[in-house]
Amino acid sequence: MITRKVLLKEEDIPKQWYNIVPDLPKPLPPFIDPETKEPGVGIVPKIFPKAIIGQEISQERWIDIPEEVREIYRIWRPSPLFRAVGLEKALKTPAKIYYKYEGVSPSGSHKTNSAVAQAYYNMKEGITRVTTETGAGQWGSALSFAAGTFGLEATVYMVRTSFDQKPYRKAMMNAYGAECVASPSNKTAAGRKILAEDPNNKGSLGIAISEAVEDSLESEKTGKKANYTIGSVFNHVCMHQTVAGLEAQKQLAIVEDYPDAVYGCIGGGSSFSGLFWPFYYDKVSKKAPKETNFFAVEPTACPKVTRGYYTYDHGDTAKLTPLVPMHTLGHDFMPAAIHAGGLRYHGIAPTISVLAKEHKISTIAVNQVEAFDAAKIFIRSEGIIPAPESAHAIKAVIDEARACVQTNTKKTLLFALTGHGFFDMSAYEEYFNGRLQPCEYPAEKVAESMAKLQKLYPWLDDARKKYINGGQ
Amino acid sequence: MITRKVLLKEEDIPKQWYNIVPDLPKPLPPFIDPETKEPGVGIVPKIFPKAIIGQEISQERWIDIPEEVREIYRIWRPSPLFRAVGLEKALKTPAKIYYKYEGVSPSGSHKTNSAVAQAYYNMKEGITRVTTETGAGQWGSALSFAAGTFGLEATVYMVRTSFDQKPYRKAMMNAYGAECVASPSNKTAAGRKILAEDPNNKGSLGIAISEAVEDSLESEKTGKKANYTIGSVFNHVCMHQTVAGLEAQKQLAIVEDYPDAVYGCIGGGSSFSGLFWPFYYDKVSKKAPKETNFFAVEPTACPKVTRGYYTYDHGDTAKLTPLVPMHTLGHDFMPAAIHAGGLRYHGIAPTISVLAKEHKISTIAVNQVEAFDAAKIFIRSEGIIPAPESAHAIKAVIDEARACVQTNTKKTLLFALTGHGFFDMSAYEEYFNGRLQPCEYPAEKVAESMAKLQKLYPWLDDARKKYINGGQ
Repeated sequence: MITRKVLLKEEDIPKQWYNIVPDLPKPLPPFIDPETKEPGVGIVPKIFPKAIIGQEISQERWIDIPEEVREIYRIWRPSPLFRAVGLEKALKTPAKIYYKYEGVSPSGSHKTNSAVAQAYYNMKEGITRVTTETGAGQWGSALSFAAGTFGLEATVYMVRTSFDQKPYRKAMMNAYGAECVASPSNKTAAGRKILAEDPNNKGSLGIAISEAVEDSLESEKTGKKANYTIGSVFNHVCMHQTVAGLEAQKQLAIVEDYPDAVYGCIGGGSSFSGLFWPFYYDKVSKKAPKETNFFAVEPTACPKVTRGYYTYDHGDTAKLTPLVPMHTLGHDFMPAAIHAGGLRYHGIAPTISVLAKEHKISTIAVNQVEAFDAAKIFIRSEGIIPAPESAHAIKAVIDEARACVQTNTKKTLLFALTGHGFFDMSAYEEYFNGRLQPCEYPAEKVAESMAKLQKLYPWLDDARKKYINGGQ
Repeated sequence: MITRKVLLKEEDIPKQWYNIVPDLPKPLPPFIDPETKEPGVGIVPKIFPKAIIGQEISQERWIDIPEEVREIYRIWRPSPLFRAVGLEKALKTPAKIYYKYEGVSPSGSHKTNSAVAQAYYNMKEGITRVTTETGAGQWGSALSFAAGTFGLEATVYMVRTSFDQKPYRKAMMNAYGAECVASPSNKTAAGRKILAEDPNNKGSLGIAISEAVEDSLESEKTGKKANYTIGSVFNHVCMHQTVAGLEAQKQLAIVEDYPDAVYGCIGGGSSFSGLFWPFYYDKVSKKAPKETNFFAVEPTACPKVTRGYYTYDHGDTAKLTPLVPMHTLGHDFMPAAIHAGGLRYHGIAPTISVLAKEHKISTIAVNQVEAFDAAKIFIRSEGIIPAPESAHAIKAVIDEARACVQTNTKKTLLFALTGHGFFDMSAYEEYFNGRLQPCEYPAEKVAESMAKLQKLYPWLDDARKKYINGGQ
């Protein structure tokens, strides 16, 4: 009988996070301050605690996880590694499929891994309130839980589309004691400006970030400083997620297996990074017993890596953040109301951007109907209802497992099941009622945004050549 | 550092269920067939597979769990036993609190334990469709999952109140491939009769059972026999749930502890039975290292044990079932729209009824506002959002843990956390918005129903005296 769930003990929760930065094939290009046009981090020091900034710029490969953070991780970690016995049978594939399931966390996704760390460091530095944005609601729920755990207040700006699609996410944040505001809101200048132009604006992650950052910046004046927290993209967030990959390595060792390929969906890139970085480290440090390939899966509705440009762009719509070196669809990107809300961000982690450019990872674009088709197969063979985000990775894994049927290849496939879909049942309802549409973001729209960006910062192309392309 | 989650291996999933029947302090009174006024099981043989009937009437103490059922249990079992480190700290109690968490099952509650067994036995006997009712939606979801697993179709009649309160339960059942119908419906004579009298009837479990049973009975005529399945009350269902208590015993042995008290909410009684029966067996077989007390917690809105009568009553509103010896509020009970939908059944397991009468268990009634107050404390200290049903048990446990503060007593308390509350967020929303009301079922209403029952079956009191009260 095959073990379905490979489990570890609480003592096996990693004691250090893995930071990929020193192992990247090329150094990370610096942020650029649009004021000075030179490398600089802009507002970053004003909105994050020092410990987080230290992690963000760290060149250390291993960073200690505070015991207080590990203590909270024990509520749900180590998370189970599942052997997809049912799915393999349904596909009649010779491939072995594993998934690292992060849906067991209190808020139901991987996001809690970084939320607990960020809340902890803010508490340690005397901060009593944190702000953030949320797309699908997973990050906002995670931060609400984590903030409550360390006695902090939390204000979450939630993209209006998701706020309307998923009303129960707000209730969940309230249950943890946090405030949840639909974005764009009247609480910030950034929100008011957008609502003045378009009162029915459905929001975007870029807008919600602007609001959460502004809230943090403005809070200084009230005498009660609130810090900003972020759910993905940044190095420190991706690094916090590596507990997943590090555990998965131990779990696969127990069953004496090792992946030929690792898959994950990408919104900002943190859940995928959390799973594959440790395997990437095995590879670059020549510890890997075989050649492993890494596949990032993005939605065709938000194809920042497959269709976006690798350049400098703001992380938010109101252009409060410094310019970040990343694949982007443009900071004015307005996503379609697709149901994988966590994948609707216009940019991607700078680390992922470097790795994609240097062909260390591959990227696959999948439309949401294909993703839900895959989810349906998964639900009916494995029982777990996946978050629509994770369903994108499942689609890619099923394709590969089917290819293995054709070639009769016994590959070992590993993917990140980032969370459950219990707050996404309205999406499933639409899918099962045949109302869900595939959705492709047009290349012209990307070109338009890029032209606007270039017009805004005429020196941008030079900066890109200098820092991203090594002078070319 | 205290271990938060006591885990077992898949090999530790029990190989046998424990059946309390031979160990009851008094023999179970028989069912009565209202036609003959004599002991008899009425329609029971027409709607269940033979294996299930065998278990229902079995006097065997231990019944083997089929390997195929254990194989599916491996998807989520053994479930974790949590030490409530955060809750103990929040209450500053010297008590040690443990909870057996069944929310890790695919459908999110303990119900899956029996659903998988029932679907399996139906499949084995060549049945291709099963019917059932569901209150909160937990049983319906579990059966949908289980039916899909063994290739069966499923038709679920869902109490209209819950159908409206929890639209995503339907989506979940659809995701597993099942059909979900709001009850009362036009699909059955029972449903049509009720809708003719009151087109806005919000339904009850009693009505939904009538519809599901009628669907099964009528299916014979179509040449494709569908069997009925039930989510609680019956002996076989309670017995299937004992995997929880049997695992909890092994888990407590690992941490060298044993409960002074075991708590569980009661709707039909199966989740509580599943947890406490094995500890009851320890007690009657003199294996228990200490005196353990058992506490059933019911809502004041549906107080069948604390306010109901212990007599003979139908299990359903349309009076299709035989007369069952149980504590009841009357089969015409119309529940208030309280949010613990799983606790709104008018009756209780015959086994629980005997145990309550013989003072082997105690019963506590809790109103829903108290239950949500307790849930709030639990969420903010343990992170997990409990199902409103489980919150009733949490309320009783918190009361006892606080009493331990006063007396400085180091009791060990164990309770059943039967499921998560992710499909109950509208209830939490109402609670956090201060719109939730406590709710008490009036004693006069029970007396009214009992008078009607006595009028319907004038011989009922004699039967009660003869079979339930041993001639008195």
